[in-house]
Amino acid sequence: MPITRDDALALDAADPLAPFRDAFGLPQGLIYLDGNSLGPPPKAAHARLADVASREWGFDLIASWNVNGWMDAPLRAGAKLARLVGAKPDEVAVADSTSVNLFKLAAGALSLRPGRRTILSTAGEFPTDLYVLEGLAGLSGAQLKTVAPDALLDAIDEDTAVVVLTHVHYRTSRRWDMAAVNAAAHAKGALVLWDLSHTAGALAAGLNASGADLAVGCGYKYLNGGPGAPAWLYVAERHQAQIRSPLSGWMGHAEPFAFEDAYRPAGDIRAQLCGTPAILGIAALEAALDLQVQADPAAVEAKGLQLSQLFIDLVSEHCRELTLATPRDPQARGLHVSLTHPDGYAIVQALIARGVVGDFRAPDVLRFGFSPLILSHAEVFDAAAILREVLATRAYDRPEFRQRAAVT
Amino acid sequence: MPITRDDALALDAADPLAPFRDAFGLPQGLIYLDGNSLGPPPKAAHARLADVASREWGFDLIASWNVNGWMDAPLRAGAKLARLVGAKPDEVAVADSTSVNLFKLAAGALSLRPGRRTILSTAGEFPTDLYVLEGLAGLSGAQLKTVAPDALLDAIDEDTAVVVLTHVHYRTSRRWDMAAVNAAAHAKGALVLWDLSHTAGALAAGLNASGADLAVGCGYKYLNGGPGAPAWLYVAERHQAQIRSPLSGWMGHAEPFAFEDAYRPAGDIRAQLCGTPAILGIAALEAALDLQVQADPAAVEAKGLQLSQLFIDLVSEHCRELTLATPRDPQARGLHVSLTHPDGYAIVQALIARGVVGDFRAPDVLRFGFSPLILSHAEVFDAAAILREVLATRAYDRPEFRQRAAVT
Repeated sequence: MPITRDDALALDAADPLAPFRDAFGLPQGLIYLDGNSLGPPPKAAHARLADVASREWGFDLIASWNVNGWMDAPLRAGAKLARLVGAKPDEVAVADSTSVNLFKLAAGALSLRPGRRTILSTAGEFPTDLYVLEGLAGLSGAQLKTVAPDALLDAIDEDTAVVVLTHVHYRTSRRWDMAAVNAAAHAKGALVLWDLSHTAGALAAGLNASGADLAVGCGYKYLNGGPGAPAWLYVAERHQAQIRSPLSGWMGHAEPFAFEDAYRPAGDIRAQLCGTPAILGIAALEAALDLQVQADPAAVEAKGLQLSQLFIDLVSEHCRELTLATPRDPQARGLHVSLTHPDGYAIVQALIARGVVGDFRAPDVLRFGFSPLILSHAEVFDAAAILREVLATRAYDRPEFRQRAAVT
Repeated sequence: MPITRDDALALDAADPLAPFRDAFGLPQGLIYLDGNSLGPPPKAAHARLADVASREWGFDLIASWNVNGWMDAPLRAGAKLARLVGAKPDEVAVADSTSVNLFKLAAGALSLRPGRRTILSTAGEFPTDLYVLEGLAGLSGAQLKTVAPDALLDAIDEDTAVVVLTHVHYRTSRRWDMAAVNAAAHAKGALVLWDLSHTAGALAAGLNASGADLAVGCGYKYLNGGPGAPAWLYVAERHQAQIRSPLSGWMGHAEPFAFEDAYRPAGDIRAQLCGTPAILGIAALEAALDLQVQADPAAVEAKGLQLSQLFIDLVSEHCRELTLATPRDPQARGLHVSLTHPDGYAIVQALIARGVVGDFRAPDVLRFGFSPLILSHAEVFDAAAILREVLATRAYDRPEFRQRAAVT
């Protein structure tokens, strides 16, 4: 029996997360399926930013480091984020960018496994992760080894210091079994460093329940923290006293304001901080986290998978021109759906012109993200209908939709 | 002849930079002598932040990377900043924190001098710089060597890859002769990496005129870019094609959106970018830069030295209890003035209670910054008078002024 718009409306009526939608001010009529690339601002972020800029920065000025809790911001925001990824409050800090945090923790993993030289990852990982690991290997004398995903578990050996993986793949949406990888690595004495950029705020990642060691993630996708939001990092409590960050800036010192010449790392997650925290960025992210922590992570994941399943079902039924590049099994994927088509770029542009925003990944991937707090099932139904119409009428086959922009 | 308040008012009447003061919304009655620690917001920053958050992030969403120039933000802001530090527009980028940038460029210097193992600095440098260099040395196999400032030039030898110095010392305000240090290092085949955190927006640093190689600096002091503002870095054109950053994130790739597995660095300053740029932070900083570039750097330096000289003269005349810890020669110092007193902390608190904001650096330093765009000579006169009164009446000798806050 074909899925109808009424089916979608019925799902919306039963959706316990539906009220969250009003906390965002998305433009009228826009169906935003790119929250996996840049989440929209919660309305509260605007007021929070204005308050931090005007009252805290402008009026309290330097005193804000104490009176407005700026010094605590990285750990305060981290403690909120910890609830979304199954960590303890003192295991997460907000700081720097995902790339910089990945460098810190991959180097930190080398410090925890001093006899081992191999950093193991897979070919086709999110590029910046591989680039940063390559940079670290070049500087430290470690070696970066990449293998096909299917060969990963067998490639872990006694020389493996750390396995670095994105939990949900940016292109295929394929999801790793975190517990299984952690167990396989630990069996060989290796650590695992997870990139949860496509997980936090989307899936109920149980870091501690899975036996995780280390993780990083960005703040600007499903967490809705703003463009280039500060990223975050997680270090399991059991590693915090031993791990060493080479980015040993003053905010990671046991006493930042003692102004000593020699570095003495803090004994906890603060040792992973480096320079002065980005207060404006953390403020926007924290406003988004204050909203997100009100939603049960399991409910968020369930809704996201339901939305994406609805889209997959509709597209499979009506858009035979497209090839699904994402696992059909909901437990094996994240909250974005990738489809391939030789004219993928132009199709994405034609959709944007009709108010359906997805994105494109070269050479042929159409990518649609199903951010649970901002979307309704009816919108997903409508997006699939518009996609069907764009394909059926070849509405994408126009020169203006083929002209590439700098960022795709 | 003693200096009078009328003298100060006469200097204000003749001050070509006086109109800039109105571009900031400092609280009424506050004399803010801590712009060297956290500059105040230009009024324009509030509107800019609100526009970026509401229209760009909230309305244009992901398209903003193209339509609102987010991709270009690090280099666009860098080009503006370049004018303040005597660099070419394509030699400066805004990114990350000062600590992270110092790590990148110190590692980059090692890549430019592959046979050499020594990173040379001085004892008592700004702590985060030494900490980061220590972290880099530990990871890379280089050695960090620190010597007394007076012994620095003689310590440069054939093993020195890079000399790392803060141009203006955070505590003493002592200013290095950039051209002399660059020449001495170059004579031995070494490079110099300058930390211009207390210079940019304050002194007319002629990076290229001095023969500089590399520099970093923060955005939140005299540049008024906001709390934890994105920092900046400079690489002289002649080094850009060869230097390698170990923080090789995707924004430094020759084609970030080609999503290749292997890192191919951009051939220019972009190779020093790493993760996704912090758009909100850059927006606030850029609003401040748009204001700052309207002032002639030489005039800014001249006014700042005049303000600080006025303060030194008044304090020398009226506050004999204090010891000047800053060079008397204006050409040998930056724009802050340090004074020592065993009760320094309490005196700073007593001043704050009277609306004069300076800061304290352990164990005994009272530090006052003279940010040229926001201060008048009359304010400096008044601040010195209040300091005189606090000392003469021992108004600081109260328990509440001795209680230490987390950040001092």
